Amino acid sequence: MDNVFDLDSAIRKVPDFPKKGILFYDITSILADPVAFKHCIDSMIDAYRGERIDAVAAIESRGFVFAAPFADRMGIPLILIRKKGKLPGETISRKYQLEYGEAEIEVHEMDVPKGKRVLVVDDLIATGGTLKAATELVVAAGAQVAGIFGVVGLPFLNYRSMLGGVPIKTLIEYHGE
Amino acid sequence: MDNVFDLDSAIRKVPDFPKKGILFYDITSILADPVAFKHCIDSMIDAYRGERIDAVAAIESRGFVFAAPFADRMGIPLILIRKKGKLPGETISRKYQLEYGEAEIEVHEMDVPKGKRVLVVDDLIATGGTLKAATELVVAAGAQVAGIFGVVGLPFLNYRSMLGGVPIKTLIEYHGE
Repeated sequence: MDNVFDLDSAIRKVPDFPKKGILFYDITSILADPVAFKHCIDSMIDAYRGERIDAVAAIESRGFVFAAPFADRMGIPLILIRKKGKLPGETISRKYQLEYGEAEIEVHEMDVPKGKRVLVVDDLIATGGTLKAATELVVAAGAQVAGIFGVVGLPFLNYRSMLGGVPIKTLIEYHGE
Repeated sequence: MDNVFDLDSAIRKVPDFPKKGILFYDITSILADPVAFKHCIDSMIDAYRGERIDAVAAIESRGFVFAAPFADRMGIPLILIRKKGKLPGETISRKYQLEYGEAEIEVHEMDVPKGKRVLVVDDLIATGGTLKAATELVVAAGAQVAGIFGVVGLPFLNYRSMLGGVPIKTLIEYHGE
């Protein structure tokens, strides 16, 4: 939790989205508030000060809005991890399980800097399924996973066990209802 | 066109994507190159120096990666314009024609600052169909369109006639094959 800026108040909570019984933590209200958005990017920079981060990989598509300013401020490469079929070049891909069925994400293998330390960024960490597939892509493309960052974490969905020993940082956590 | 930095060399050209006969201008190669990415964001800032831009609206999802650093540097609100069904709150939406069939985009009406000047951003401007729908959403939500920005413009696809009198800026244009 954050002690200076009240990030919680900047996150819109939408009940029953995308389906009944789910409380959705909406970060678009952060983006609409320049003070809140600056707080998030400042906090990301602070969180990794003193660590070597060579590149940032962003999960489509809300991950893009936090990873892009981070990459811009840090002067490091930004790699997009997208849903299957969106990237035009040579890709490697990973399937992963959803509650019903499966999904697939991919990355331009040539854009992942070999042997470098890559931070994987999304807006929210829930079960960690997408992020686990993303870290596997980073490794399969020849880089190291420096860590995982999410603005919001929902640890009651057990992402820490899903994501094993990878260092995970969030700016705010919610603990169920 | 850009006279100092060779932006063209940073844009990957992929033939036959998403289908045969289309040459795809891929901006993910800009993102992977911090010098090229910084050049683009610097150039966006320069392009609107002296104009009043109160907020930036970003088209899902490649528009996000240019609009987010721009909003971060400018300290202005970032509004996401997304495909139908992705935004959890109260939205307004617009349908528009594709080559085959139609698509629909929407915005959180409450996140659009009423009466303010909003810059609409995407990575690439082709026919302008999506951007036209996006400008209509901005106006329908009660704001003004300050302009349209795309890193890449394809004027041979006639986006200027589609987009009428809205001021359009791009960093590089391609003129067909």
